[in-house]
Amino acid sequence: MSTTSSALRPILVAGQWRDAVHQTTFHATDPNQNRPLEATFPVSEWADCDEALDAAAGAARELRRLPRSSIAAFLNGYADRIDAAKETLVEAAFAETGLARSPRLADVELPRTSNQLRAAAVACLRGDWAHATIDTQAGIRSVYESLGPVCVFGPNNFPFAFNSLSGGDFAAAIAAGNPVIGKANSSHPETTRRFAELALEAADEAGLPPATVQLIYRTRHADGERLVSDPRLGATGYTGSRSAGLTLKAAADRAGKPIYLELSSVNPVVITPAALEQRGEEIADEFVTSVLMGTGQFCTNPGMVMLLAGEPTERFITTVKQRFESAGTGTLLSPAVSNSLSKSVKLLCEYGAELLTGGGEPAVDRCSYANTLLRVEGDTFLKRAADLQTEAFGNASLMLVCEDLSQLIAAIGCLEGNLTGCVYSSTDGSDEEAYRRIAFELAPKVGRLLNEKMPTGVAVSPAMNHGGPFPATGHPGFTAVGIPASLIRFAKLTSYDNVRAERLPQSLQDENLNGTWRFIDGQWTQSAV
Amino acid sequence: MSTTSSALRPILVAGQWRDAVHQTTFHATDPNQNRPLEATFPVSEWADCDEALDAAAGAARELRRLPRSSIAAFLNGYADRIDAAKETLVEAAFAETGLARSPRLADVELPRTSNQLRAAAVACLRGDWAHATIDTQAGIRSVYESLGPVCVFGPNNFPFAFNSLSGGDFAAAIAAGNPVIGKANSSHPETTRRFAELALEAADEAGLPPATVQLIYRTRHADGERLVSDPRLGATGYTGSRSAGLTLKAAADRAGKPIYLELSSVNPVVITPAALEQRGEEIADEFVTSVLMGTGQFCTNPGMVMLLAGEPTERFITTVKQRFESAGTGTLLSPAVSNSLSKSVKLLCEYGAELLTGGGEPAVDRCSYANTLLRVEGDTFLKRAADLQTEAFGNASLMLVCEDLSQLIAAIGCLEGNLTGCVYSSTDGSDEEAYRRIAFELAPKVGRLLNEKMPTGVAVSPAMNHGGPFPATGHPGFTAVGIPASLIRFAKLTSYDNVRAERLPQSLQDENLNGTWRFIDGQWTQSAV
Repeated sequence: MSTTSSALRPILVAGQWRDAVHQTTFHATDPNQNRPLEATFPVSEWADCDEALDAAAGAARELRRLPRSSIAAFLNGYADRIDAAKETLVEAAFAETGLARSPRLADVELPRTSNQLRAAAVACLRGDWAHATIDTQAGIRSVYESLGPVCVFGPNNFPFAFNSLSGGDFAAAIAAGNPVIGKANSSHPETTRRFAELALEAADEAGLPPATVQLIYRTRHADGERLVSDPRLGATGYTGSRSAGLTLKAAADRAGKPIYLELSSVNPVVITPAALEQRGEEIADEFVTSVLMGTGQFCTNPGMVMLLAGEPTERFITTVKQRFESAGTGTLLSPAVSNSLSKSVKLLCEYGAELLTGGGEPAVDRCSYANTLLRVEGDTFLKRAADLQTEAFGNASLMLVCEDLSQLIAAIGCLEGNLTGCVYSSTDGSDEEAYRRIAFELAPKVGRLLNEKMPTGVAVSPAMNHGGPFPATGHPGFTAVGIPASLIRFAKLTSYDNVRAERLPQSLQDENLNGTWRFIDGQWTQSAV
Repeated sequence: MSTTSSALRPILVAGQWRDAVHQTTFHATDPNQNRPLEATFPVSEWADCDEALDAAAGAARELRRLPRSSIAAFLNGYADRIDAAKETLVEAAFAETGLARSPRLADVELPRTSNQLRAAAVACLRGDWAHATIDTQAGIRSVYESLGPVCVFGPNNFPFAFNSLSGGDFAAAIAAGNPVIGKANSSHPETTRRFAELALEAADEAGLPPATVQLIYRTRHADGERLVSDPRLGATGYTGSRSAGLTLKAAADRAGKPIYLELSSVNPVVITPAALEQRGEEIADEFVTSVLMGTGQFCTNPGMVMLLAGEPTERFITTVKQRFESAGTGTLLSPAVSNSLSKSVKLLCEYGAELLTGGGEPAVDRCSYANTLLRVEGDTFLKRAADLQTEAFGNASLMLVCEDLSQLIAAIGCLEGNLTGCVYSSTDGSDEEAYRRIAFELAPKVGRLLNEKMPTGVAVSPAMNHGGPFPATGHPGFTAVGIPASLIRFAKLTSYDNVRAERLPQSLQDENLNGTWRFIDGQWTQSAV
C-alpha cells in the first residue's frame, strides 16, 4: 500500500517522521497564481490514524504523570521557536494562503500565535482554568483534569493562529494536559509540517513524550469520522465548513465523544437610522474595512447588515457599494474558497437577493472574486430566512433592508445561532428604546454582542466568547478563543470524595504552592485550605 | 382526538390545567401490590408539546426581564410549599414507588429536595455560578445567561429529589433563569402532578409567568425526540435508561440542542486484599448496606466489586452472600424494574457470570426480585468486558475476581465511563503502590473517585460531580448534582464587547451590589470594578 517518493512529505507519528501509508496524494495551491505547489502530501490510510491514536493514548498517560511545569516549558519553548522561525513560516504560509506577508502574517498573526501559546503556558502553570473546588465539610474536592488525546482540524483562514498544530485549539488542548493529533488543513500542509517540526523539537527539549504532537495531512472522509469517534480519543476541535463539520459531529456524537465545532456564521450587524444620520460615513468606513480585510475570510466577517428603510440607509448602501467598487480585489485562500463564494452568491440571488455590485465567476489567473454586495428586502428575507442566511465566505455581504423596527425584530428572530452580533446606534442615546428591543432579540442568538464595533477583531481575552449557539458552534457554553476559558473544553470533571490527603492531585491538596485560584467552601481564594 | 374523562388527570400547559389531547392513557403501578393504581393519565399528542413549547418560549422571554430575586423567591416559596405538603407528597410517592414513607421519603428525600431548591435560590441570587468575567483593558465582559426552555425527563428512582418538576435538573434549570417543561416519569405521574400544583401556586405568588412550570405525563417516543430537538427548546435534562436516553441524544444532537444525560453505571468498587484482611467484615457491612439500600435502585449503586483472588476475597464473598440471603427482599419501583433486573441477571449469566445467590423470576404479588450476587473471573471478564458491564439495576451485584493486580488493572482499562469508582485499600499504607496503580487507571473512567466509602451517597456539594465519561453521561465536563456547578448546563456564554456600561447586564456592571464572585482582570473578587 505504501509508496515512497522523494518529493513526498512525511507524516509525524509517534515521534517519527515517516512516509504515510497512502494510496493517493494531494498538493496545496498557490492562490496568487492559482497553480498547484510542488510539494506532494499523502492522504493517509486508516493505519496511520490507528498508529497515531495508539501513540497518543500512550502520550496521554505519560503527560498525566508529568508536572505541569514541563507542559508550560514546552509551550514557551515552542513559542520561542515559532518566533525564531518567523521568516520560513511566513514564506510557507504566504505561498499556500496568499495572505500578505506583512503586516498580516509576520506582524499580526505570528505574534498572536506565539503569544497565545505563552498565555496557555501561564494558564497551565497557574491552573485557575481547572476550577478546583473544595468542600472541607463534606470532604469532597473536584477539579477539571486532562481528557485524553485531542484531534484538531484547523481551518483554512488562519494558517498560524488557528493552525491544527499551533493555534487556539492546540494551545488549549496541550495546556489542559492532552496530546494533539493535528489534521492539517489541506490548503496549508507545508506550513503545518513546519510547525510540527518545531513542536517536536520543543517537546523533546521539555521532556514531553514525542507523541504529544503528531501530524497527519489528510484522510479519507470515512476515516475522519472513525478518528473522531475512536475510543482512544478524548475530544475533537474542528473549525471549518458546516457540511464537513456536521458529518464529523454526527460520528463523534454517536460515540459520545465531545467535539467542539466552529462552523459558519453570517455575523449580523444592525445599524439604526439614527447612527447612520449621526456618522454614516464613518460606519461605512468601518464596515468596508472589516468586510474586505483579509478578503473577508474571517469567521466573524460581517456577512449581513440589518438596516431600516429610508434615506440614511440608501446613502449608506450607496457609499458601501462605491467603496466595494473602488477597493482592490484581494486574493482568496484557495480555488475551493473562490468557487464556494461564487456559488453562495448565486444561491443568494436565487433566493431573492439583488446583486448591487460584484458577482459573476471567480478569476482564473489567481484565486479571487469581485467584491460583492447584495441586497434583500425584509419581507423577502422573512419568507426565506434560512436560505438567505447562506454563508458567503469571503469578500461579500448582504444588506437586509427592513420596513420598520418590528420587521427588523422579526428578522432577528429568524436568525440562526451566530458567533457575533453588532449593534450601531446613536451615541446620544436618542434611539435607546430601539437598541433595547434589538439587543434583547439579538443577544440570545449570538456568542458575542458588540456595540459600535465591527466583529472581525477576536481578542485573546479571558472574557472573549468565540462561540455561540448552534449552528455557529456545536454547544452554546464554550469558547474557542480566550485563555483560560478555552481550556475547559478538553477536560473532564473529577470529584475526589473522601480521598486521602496525600493522594489528592496537587491542585486539590490543602497547600496551594502555585497560588491557584480555588473555590473553597463557597469563596474563591488563592490561600491554602 | 381529545376525549374527556372525569378520572383523567389534567396536564399543565401555559398556566392552565386542562385535558390532554390524547388517544391513549396509562396507569402507574402500586409496586407493593403489583397492581395498577386508579388514576388515569393521558399520553399526550404532539399538539400538547407544541403548545407547551410556545408557552415556554414566551415564559423564557419574560423570565429574562425579571430580576433574579423573583426567581429566587419562587424557589424558596416552592420549597416551603413542598415542606408543608410533605404528608400528601409522601403518600403519593409511596403509592407509586413503594419506597419507604420513613425515613426514606419523608425524612431523607423530601428535605433534600426542598433544601436543594433553597440552595438553588441562593445560587440564583448570588450569581457566582455564571462566572462573570471582566477584562477592563480589552473592554470585554462575559457571563453565562439563561438558555431557553428546558425539558426535564426525571428518573423513576427519586420521585422527589430528581423529579422532573422538583429535582436537581429542575432546580438548576430554573435557577439559571429558564422555564421547565416536565415530562413526568411514568412510574410516578401523580406525585409529579402534585409537585406541579405546588409549583404553579409558587410561580403565581412570586410573579413568574405561569408557563415557567409545565407538565406533560407522557408522549409517544417519536414526539419525545421531536420535543428535545425543537427549535424553541434550549436544552434537555434526562435521567433514565440508556436505550431511551441514547435515542433522545441522537435526536437532540442532530438539531444541535444540548442534552444532558445520566444513563447507567455499574460503579465499580475495588477492594484490595490488604483492606479485606484489615477490615473485611466492616467493608462487607458497608457494601451490603449500600447495595441493598433502596433495593439497590440508585444511579450510583455498586454493581461491580473488583477483587483479587485469594483467601480474603473468598471470605468476603461468602460473607456478602450470607448477608444477601439473610436480608429481606425490598420492593422494586415497578414491574418494569423487576423484569429488567431479571433479564439483566440472565444476560450476565449467559455472558459467563456464575449465580452465587438469588436470580430466578421476579415475584408476582409485588414488584421484587431476590437479592442477587454474581461472580465472574478476571479472564472471563476480559473476554466479554462490554457484555459483562450490563447494568443490573436493583438489588444485585457482580463480584469480579482477578488473578493478580495486572489483570485487575487490565479489567479497569476495559471499563466504560462510570459515575463513580471506589477504592478500598489498607489504612496503614502497606498497599499504597497498588492503590496508585489502581487509581491512575480508574480516575479517567469515573466522574467521582472515592476512598473507603461506598458510592451511594451523593452530597449536594459544590465539589460534587454526579457525572462522568460516556456512557455514564453524555459529556464528561458537567455535573447533575451540586450547586452552583449544575446550573451552567442550562446556560449560554455571552460576551459583551465594547457594550456601553448602562446596557450591560447587572452581573457585568462595574458595581457589584450582590457581592457576586467575578473574575476581573485575572483575579476572582467580590468587589466592584
